[in-house]
This record gives sequence, structure tokens and C-alpha cells, in this order.
Amino acid sequence: MSFSVFDHQMMAKAIKLAEKGRFTTHPNPNVGCVITQGETIVGHGYHIRAGGPHAEVHALRMAGEKAIGATAYVTLEPCSHYGRTPPCAEGLIKAGVSRVICAMQDPNPQVSGNGIAMLQEAGIEVQVGLLESEAERINRPFLKKMRTGLPWVQLKMAASLDGKTALSNGQSQWITSSQARADVQLYRAQSGAILSSSKTVIDDNASLNVRFAELPDEIQSLYPEGEVRQPLRVILDRQQNMTPELTQELRLFHTEGNVLVISEQKNSQQKHIDLPELLAKLAREHNINHIWVEAGATLAASFIEQQLVDELVVYLAPKIMGTDGRGLINLLGLTSMDQTIDLNIEQLTQVGPDIKLVATFKTSK
Amino acid sequence: MSFSVFDHQMMAKAIKLAEKGRFTTHPNPNVGCVITQGETIVGHGYHIRAGGPHAEVHALRMAGEKAIGATAYVTLEPCSHYGRTPPCAEGLIKAGVSRVICAMQDPNPQVSGNGIAMLQEAGIEVQVGLLESEAERINRPFLKKMRTGLPWVQLKMAASLDGKTALSNGQSQWITSSQARADVQLYRAQSGAILSSSKTVIDDNASLNVRFAELPDEIQSLYPEGEVRQPLRVILDRQQNMTPELTQELRLFHTEGNVLVISEQKNSQQKHIDLPELLAKLAREHNINHIWVEAGATLAASFIEQQLVDELVVYLAPKIMGTDGRGLINLLGLTSMDQTIDLNIEQLTQVGPDIKLVATFKTSK
Repeated sequence: MSFSVFDHQMMAKAIKLAEKGRFTTHPNPNVGCVITQGETIVGHGYHIRAGGPHAEVHALRMAGEKAIGATAYVTLEPCSHYGRTPPCAEGLIKAGVSRVICAMQDPNPQVSGNGIAMLQEAGIEVQVGLLESEAERINRPFLKKMRTGLPWVQLKMAASLDGKTALSNGQSQWITSSQARADVQLYRAQSGAILSSSKTVIDDNASLNVRFAELPDEIQSLYPEGEVRQPLRVILDRQQNMTPELTQELRLFHTEGNVLVISEQKNSQQKHIDLPELLAKLAREHNINHIWVEAGATLAASFIEQQLVDELVVYLAPKIMGTDGRGLINLLGLTSMDQTIDLNIEQLTQVGPDIKLVATFKTSK
Repeated sequence: MSFSVFDHQMMAKAIKLAEKGRFTTHPNPNVGCVITQGETIVGHGYHIRAGGPHAEVHALRMAGEKAIGATAYVTLEPCSHYGRTPPCAEGLIKAGVSRVICAMQDPNPQVSGNGIAMLQEAGIEVQVGLLESEAERINRPFLKKMRTGLPWVQLKMAASLDGKTALSNGQSQWITSSQARADVQLYRAQSGAILSSSKTVIDDNASLNVRFAELPDEIQSLYPEGEVRQPLRVILDRQQNMTPELTQELRLFHTEGNVLVISEQKNSQQKHIDLPELLAKLAREHNINHIWVEAGATLAASFIEQQLVDELVVYLAPKIMGTDGRGLINLLGLTSMDQTIDLNIEQLTQVGPDIKLVATFKTSK
């Protein structure tokens, strides 16, 4: 199996198209499609929002009769099942496409090779694996949930350069810059759920929503008429601090979007929230594949210690807050340097005056 | 006064040449010189080491008779006084140069406009101010000492991502990577003095010297036959922990280079080291213009609180060490977010796996 430079260019374009859906397709994957005749693009499209047409449908509509004998580049295996839309494999067959290149197979058990088989049975030449790792990357949440039943978890942390999240008296507004807070809006907007603790919500009267006005223009343009998709807000309330009075007062409950307060779970000890079980439940019952965690030092430590975090997003403000400030992660009792929790830095940038780093956990020393 | 694109290029080249001396010229400034006839370079050179010929001498030797009617680009005003070498202004006059462009005037009171005046009196056209801020930048230590009598101070800090310098039991080797430690060698090698505390030296048996083998090849090549200039090591020993037995044992005293142990100062309260007075004394009596501080959290806090630091160099290892680890800066008691010490990040890079940032202090909020 070999791919030409042109093939690479077309699949790269399809991936770029797919990414345009990243704020709106949850819980569906991001998919892009490009259709070519010879070296001319005759159709392109992407999955814009859950419930709407798939990428292939947009591209085939644009191509019309020019799809006959064409090549289709798709970032994910075309679907083979009747869902909210008819199967895309069928659409490609009917349109008369003669060759389909997929970046990767769809791990969704309803598809998982069936789409490819349908195309091949119809006499279409199918190739799989072009820019596969790039295609994996844009759908990490969808793919993780499909493969493991668990959502993909990003943990946000913000601190001063000396690792403090608040002064000793609790003051913390604002450690990071408005630019860093706008960056956080982008992460919230891409997630399926925003998870936090009742303490954070009560202390900061945080609404934990996506604010259209704070999104960059190019992101606003991805929403039809400002109809922002609001992620589910999941609030852990282990100690049941969320009284009825508070639900009257807090911004959280008076902003658009759903709120799920978790105070205890069946089959668990009292006052204990089983985080892995909660994550599995959010995936299973609420169809959440991407969770953005904004939590304090204690919950952050629980997520990290239980190895539930796929990616850390850390903002460090260029400030010194002092030794008696509050720490970043409530993790205690390391006695040897080989017990430290080690990270790989994937991205290091400046966001306004602040340092931003995106990191993953090293799996072994 | 106007400069051509060619003038800019030649001065940029002279500045690049000057920088090659940054490991060897202390306490002298770094100076580069380029001599041109029309658009041809006929001579170039830089001040290689204190005691050796100045940049202009090297460039004029290379140019020979081609210096007659030539233009000389010099990063600092040519000297006018008889020091270890005859004045460069005289050398340029004798060589028959017809135009001299200086990036900046020399604040050294022995020169300070006299070099320019000497050249002008000899009928040479002199222009000053081409790439002045770049020329300032390569000689920040020399210029600060000349202007204020105080050395330029860089403070090095190293911590984990959560701002810890050691575990609660004191373990700290190694937080940062070998690449970060090699980077520290480069800073040590550029300094006039390395300042630390007896606690750091005793705890780590640190030699605080420049190790030729750990310098990159291109830096090794700047030293004649591995003759590394060893900065003065200044050890603050407020509590007089540096016993005669320890001076027998510690590596510090058995490696090349001078050591100055400061236990108390005249005219000061007992057990108190007056840091501003110490810095002034190091400049005045030891001709130190550039100090590299490698200290623990307490001494770092003293330097920062007394506003004695010109530049911070911080290495953050991608590790989490826990809330009970030791803090980066022993600074206590901030009660309001407008009391935080705020920095400007000048550089943000990765050094091996670690984050490195170079920062200055904001002078006002």
C-alpha cells in the first residue's frame, strides 16, 4: 500500500476540515472528507454538529455528479449503520466513487471494519492508514471512550511560578491573566463535561460555562448564530454542601446548560466518590467522552493519584506568592525522588504573560 | 545621522564577534570590531580575554594597510586611556581609518566620550548609536557596574512544576535534568563570581566551579587549550558553619579557583550580612561586575526582597513533588494579591525535558 504526495495533501486537508467541528460534534467524532477527480477537488465537508449530516454527505452533495469515478479521502472509516443518518458507506457507493482512502478504522463496534467491507463488496478500492496518527490525535476522546468505555480526561491547573494557587488567606483572584482565562474557555467549549467540586463552585461562585463573547472570532464563526453547545457541568459534592439555598444563589444554576451534582454513589462507602466508576457512568449514561476538570488541589491529587488524567493543561503566572501560599496538588509523603510523578511536556507556549504547558504522565521511570 | 543596511549588517557582525568573548573577558566588556573598505570586510576581531589585545587591535592587525581610508564598526566607544594596552582611538588614527561607527559610548569614566573626541580631533568622521540596545545587552554586567558601582546579579532557581526544591526529607538529587545542569555551567562560566551559602555547599558538597568537560564543544573552543577562567566563589556563612575541618573536606576548597567565605561584615549587626554592601564590595575590591547566585530558598528570598536581582533564571522540572516538599522562595505573609512579586518572562524554552525561563522583575504593578 502506497500513498502519493497528493494523497497526503488531501488527507491533511480532510483532517484540517475535521478539526473545525471540534466545538460542536460531541459526542460524535470529528470527521473531514475531501473528494477529488484527478488532481482537482470536487467536494469537501466536515461533520459540523451531532445530529447533522456526516462529513461524506456534505462532500458528496458538493461534488454531485463529479463524484462518479472519484477518490474520497475520509479521516475515519465511513459508517455502515443506520443512525440519525443513513450509512455513509452506502452514500459513497451510490454516488459512484471508485476509490476511498481512510485515515483509520472506526473502533465503534457498530462500524469497526463493516464500512470498509461494504465499500469493498461494492467494488470500491479501499486503502486505510494514511496519516493515521494525526487522525487519532483529533479524536482522542471519542476513540478512548470507544476502546475503553472511559472518557478522555484533561486536568486544568493554574498556579504562580512558585506553585501556589492562593495566598494563605485564600485570595486567588486573579493569578493568571485574562488571556489564560480565555484559553480555558476554548478547552471548556471542546469538552463534553466540565467537572469541578462544590467547594470551587461555592468559593468562586463559578458558572463553569462557555461564554460566547469570550471565544475568539474564528471560533464564534463555527457556531450557528451563537448557539453555543454547553457541556454538562458535573459537580462533586462529597460532603453535601450544595444546600437548596445555595442552588438558588449560585450562578452555576442560573446559566444555560445542565448541571449534575454528585454527592454519593451507590455501592460505595459513605462520603466517598468512586472516581473511576463516576467516569465510566458519565461515559455510559451521559455519552460523555471528553471531560475537562477544573478542580482544587485535593480533587486534582485524587485524579492524578488514581491515574485518571490523560492530559494536564497547566498555566503558570509569572508571580511569586510565597511559601505560605496554598499548594498546587495535595499530594503528601513522598520520601524518595524516584516517587515523584513525572511528566512529558508536549507543548510549551506563552499565553499573554503566562506560561502554558500541556503534558502527559510518564508511565514508567 | 543615518545608517545604511550595510552599516547595520556590519555592526550586527561586530556584536556577534563581541559575544564570542563572553566567557573570557570578565571584568572587561565584550567588544567586537569590523573594518571595511567599500563593501568589503578587510579586518575583524574581538576582545578575547582580559589582559589581551582589544577588538580594534585584532581587526587593525588583520586589515594592515587596507585600514587606510576604511570604516571601522566598533560595538563600544574605542578607549582613550593607556591601560594594559595603548588607547584604541590612537590605533585607529595611526592606521588611517577615515570613519568610525560606534554602537554606544563607553560609560567608563576613563573613556566616556574621550575616545570619540580623540578620533574627531584627528579628523575622523564618528557616528554613535547604531544597534545601541543590542550592544547594551551584551554588556549588561560591565555597564551596570560602571554606572552604579554594583554588579549585575542573576539568580538561578530550580524546582519541580509544583514549586518544590526538595522532598520533605531534604532529598533533591536530581530535580532537573543533566541538560539543565549543563546549561547552568554556561551561566557559571560567564559570571565573574558565583555566590552561594555555606549551607548549600555543605549539604551538597558542591564545588561551584566551571567544568571544562561539561561545556559544549563550541564553548570549549573559545578557551585556549582548556584554560578555563574560574569565577570567584563567594560563600555566605552567616552562622559560621564553615569549620576548618570542613575546609579540609569540602570539594569547594580542592577545586581550581578562588573562594571567599563571608561570615560577617564590619559595621553590621552580628550574624547579619548586608547584601547590598557585600555586592558593592565585590564590585569595588574584587572587580566583579557579574554575579551568578545559586542559593537556597532563604538567601533567594533575601535577594528578591531587597530587589538585588537583575535577572532570574528558573528551571522547572516536569515533576510533581507534593505539597509537603520544600518551597522555592522563603517569602512569607502576603495578604493581598497586589503584593505578589511579578515578573516579565523574557525567554521561555525547553532544556532537555525541563522548562527554562529567564525573567526580570516588574518594577511596578
